[in-house]
Amino acid sequence: MNGHQTRAIVRIREMILRGELGPGERVAEAPLAERLGMSRTPVRQALPVLAQEGLLAEHQTRGYVVRGFSTADVLDAIDLRGVLEGLAARRVAERGASRTLLQALRVCLAEGDQILAEGHVADKFEALYVDMNVRFHQLIVAECRSPIIQQALERNARIPFAGPQALALDKTSLERMYDTMAYAHRQHHCIVSALERGESSRVEALMREHTNPVKENLNIPGTSEEPREVKPHLALVR
Amino acid sequence: MNGHQTRAIVRIREMILRGELGPGERVAEAPLAERLGMSRTPVRQALPVLAQEGLLAEHQTRGYVVRGFSTADVLDAIDLRGVLEGLAARRVAERGASRTLLQALRVCLAEGDQILAEGHVADKFEALYVDMNVRFHQLIVAECRSPIIQQALERNARIPFAGPQALALDKTSLERMYDTMAYAHRQHHCIVSALERGESSRVEALMREHTNPVKENLNIPGTSEEPREVKPHLALVR
Amino acid sequence: MNGHQTRAIVRIREMILRGELGPGERVAEAPLAERLGMSRTPVRQALPVLAQEGLLAEHQTRGYVVRGFSTADVLDAIDLRGVLEGLAARRVAERGASRTLLQALRVCLAEGDQILAEGHVADKFEALYVDMNVRFHQLIVAECRSPIIQQALERNARIPFAGPQALALDKTSLERMYDTMAYAHRQHHCIVSALERGESSRVEALMREHTNPVKENLNIPGTSEEPREVKPHLALVR
Amino acid sequence: MNGHQTRAIVRIREMILRGELGPGERVAEAPLAERLGMSRTPVRQALPVLAQEGLLAEHQTRGYVVRGFSTADVLDAIDLRGVLEGLAARRVAERGASRTLLQALRVCLAEGDQILAEGHVADKFEALYVDMNVRFHQLIVAECRSPIIQQALERNARIPFAGPQALALDKTSLERMYDTMAYAHRQHHCIVSALERGESSRVEALMREHTNPVKENLNIPGTSEEPREVKPHLALVR
Repeated sequence: MNGHQTRAIVRIREMILRGELGPGERVAEAPLAERLGMSRTPVRQALPVLAQEGLLAEHQTRGYVVRGFSTADVLDAIDLRGVLEGLAARRVAERGASRTLLQALRVCLAEGDQILAEGHVADKFEALYVDMNVRFHQLIVAECRSPIIQQALERNARIPFAGPQALALDKTSLERMYDTMAYAHRQHHCIVSALERGESSRVEALMREHTNPVKENLNIPGTSEEPREVKPHLALVR
Repeated sequence: MNGHQTRAIVRIREMILRGELGPGERVAEAPLAERLGMSRTPVRQALPVLAQEGLLAEHQTRGYVVRGFSTADVLDAIDLRGVLEGLAARRVAERGASRTLLQALRVCLAEGDQILAEGHVADKFEALYVDMNVRFHQLIVAECRSPIIQQALERNARIPFAGPQALALDKTSLERMYDTMAYAHRQHHCIVSALERGESSRVEALMREHTNPVKENLNIPGTSEEPREVKPHLALVR
Repeated sequence: MNGHQTRAIVRIREMILRGELGPGERVAEAPLAERLGMSRTPVRQALPVLAQEGLLAEHQTRGYVVRGFSTADVLDAIDLRGVLEGLAARRVAERGASRTLLQALRVCLAEGDQILAEGHVADKFEALYVDMNVRFHQLIVAECRSPIIQQALERNARIPFAGPQALALDKTSLERMYDTMAYAHRQHHCIVSALERGESSRVEALMREHTNPVKENLNIPGTSEEPREVKPHLALVR
Repeated sequence: MNGHQTRAIVRIREMILRGELGPGERVAEAPLAERLGMSRTPVRQALPVLAQEGLLAEHQTRGYVVRGFSTADVLDAIDLRGVLEGLAARRVAERGASRTLLQALRVCLAEGDQILAEGHVADKFEALYVDMNVRFHQLIVAECRSPIIQQALERNARIPFAGPQALALDKTSLERMYDTMAYAHRQHHCIVSALERGESSRVEALMREHTNPVKENLNIPGTSEEPREVKPHLALVR
């Protein structure tokens, strides 16, 4: 994926999530390229990627249209992810986490610690963190060995921000973004600690609570802790 | 639905749930009718009903085959239902249950009380109870007004015993069946009481616990409280 | 303890719990005996027993006075008991319940089943059930081996109805009393089942929920599920 | 309280918590002053303060002796505090937090944010943070208006580290101490957010989880997340 395509994906994503492109709206190559001040090729390449992410739907005759997700849907799906991952983690703790799992999770913890040791958002920071984060969550769910829970999570992850790859980074404030990462990663430490000690009730509660940094960063009116004047500048990291 | 068809449905269901018909096995009209000692017509009529229930799948050329659900899948889906309904009920309690909801639920409670007042499993007992039970659960989920949770529940309900219509009645013991009904209905009373008082944490825990009578009645080795010698005679009530 | 003394204890207890004897009120032998239509000896013998139960306090010069417990205190202490026993049970489940504990609990289950098998409230029913109930709860708390939790429970148990010996039996309706016993004992079965399977989150929730039958039987306005016209006739069983 | 007395208190506290002064050991003025390289006056003044904190007990004839608290007691009491404060916070959320409470809590949040904005442990940092922390917790418990819960918390707080004034600061690493403060204060933000939205189940889980930073900082073998070689240098801040 080249730089132009990536930029096109990021920009169109933001337009959808901010509502600049509304549900059901047709997304045509030419006007979009003009609006973005880009050439048509990267825009054309971006559309199938966004369709796979669930933000666009392929229309029989009209190319691509924006899929309809309400704010409530997004928040519900984030909650649901916490509830499903909480169920998976609780079960893992009840049965006793395997040494293999704990070792793999400790590698994730060390990676995150190293990324955060910079003390600020460094280059390549996001991609590395997201990669570690996805692995961390998948390891726990996989250990649960439940196709039912796995499928429910996969289905749920089609909704924007409802997967571990979606950190909803608030790029308007790099400092705020760093603090959120640091907080979320400390939760990772607590989750591993709870799994080590078989604290199944605690690990379930932690997994649920762990989705709140995502919700807060979404900056959706009525969900964030305090009213904020600033318009959100979200970037969906995958 | 006539008596012969009903009997065919119940019998084939039991064969699948007891593993007498294994996953992937072809279910052909003629040999099955012979095995059941029934004529072919009710068996032929039963198959599409069982397909709609999710126990059979339509095969391109071979008619119907048994869908593959492991015991673990069934138990996971029951747990998942408790977790999803728990999430829905918690939210309803947090926002405050509407008067309309509480009134409709109290009607369900009264109906159940009346059914149980017989002191034993009476005629038409099951159908009335199941009808009330389905309504009770749907009312709460509907009040939550979350398409995301609703869809996750609907998807989950395709797995046998993972919907409120599936009580997994253990017909080998009518007394045991009555006791389970009475216990489950007392939980209904507690759920309404918790909703009335806004006890959201309690109502979530109750909704989760409320799936355990179903699991116990399934009589699956390793899940029931005590080892039982008797072979289960399950009947999936819809 | 002879019959007259027992009757005196039960009657004076009821007077306190119904507010016929108010907080701080002096409880003198002679007028009380007259009011109850009993001779003075059993009343005199009853007072130190009620003092030990926490319902009366010894006054320096005035004999005994009614201790002040508000309805809110009683309900809070019942909740607190559920929370403390829930913590103890969760820990037992997290560490893994010992075979010895599970065997002793199964004996309690069998005893309760036998008592309830009568199908109605039989002679000596209450005392046997209460004895089993106290043992059941103490076994779990003891296995937790935490002097801190143990002491907090003991301190809390001084408040009426906040110990496992207090079932707050509603003797106005023997049928209702039987149903409550049956429900509470089914919860015992679930608690043992959760301990056997190491379901620590579930066992904590069950222990908390298990206090609700007590609260409901107290028939305190605003706490019971439905408004009731009948004046309560509580009897505190010890 | 002058500087010498404070230093004496802090040093003797550390000796007790590190086990350099064992349970039951007599704490005599003269040898202790010599051991600490201090004059006798500040040591004499320190002892009644430590007795009030619960670390020393007054002996009939032998002056002061070290009270016996096992590590298990300390950890249990910390857990118990989380459970009791969790119960209080849940109830506040269920009834709806008052505007007055939320405003007072937001003042605490702002104070903590300002303290932490330094980016490192600044002068007077600890005292200000501890003061804010105590207020934060007391506000929530007070709003619950339950003498029963209040008394259980007060009784529990006599055990070292089981009150909100005890942060168990790990002074061997100022950086680590800052990170723990920042994490704990972010939990404060989440707690207020949950109270604002009436998320009672979440606020209870947060209150319980909120005790874990204290436990981790205690650095007790077998409780901290990872084995640590370094000997702890705890300081009990009051």
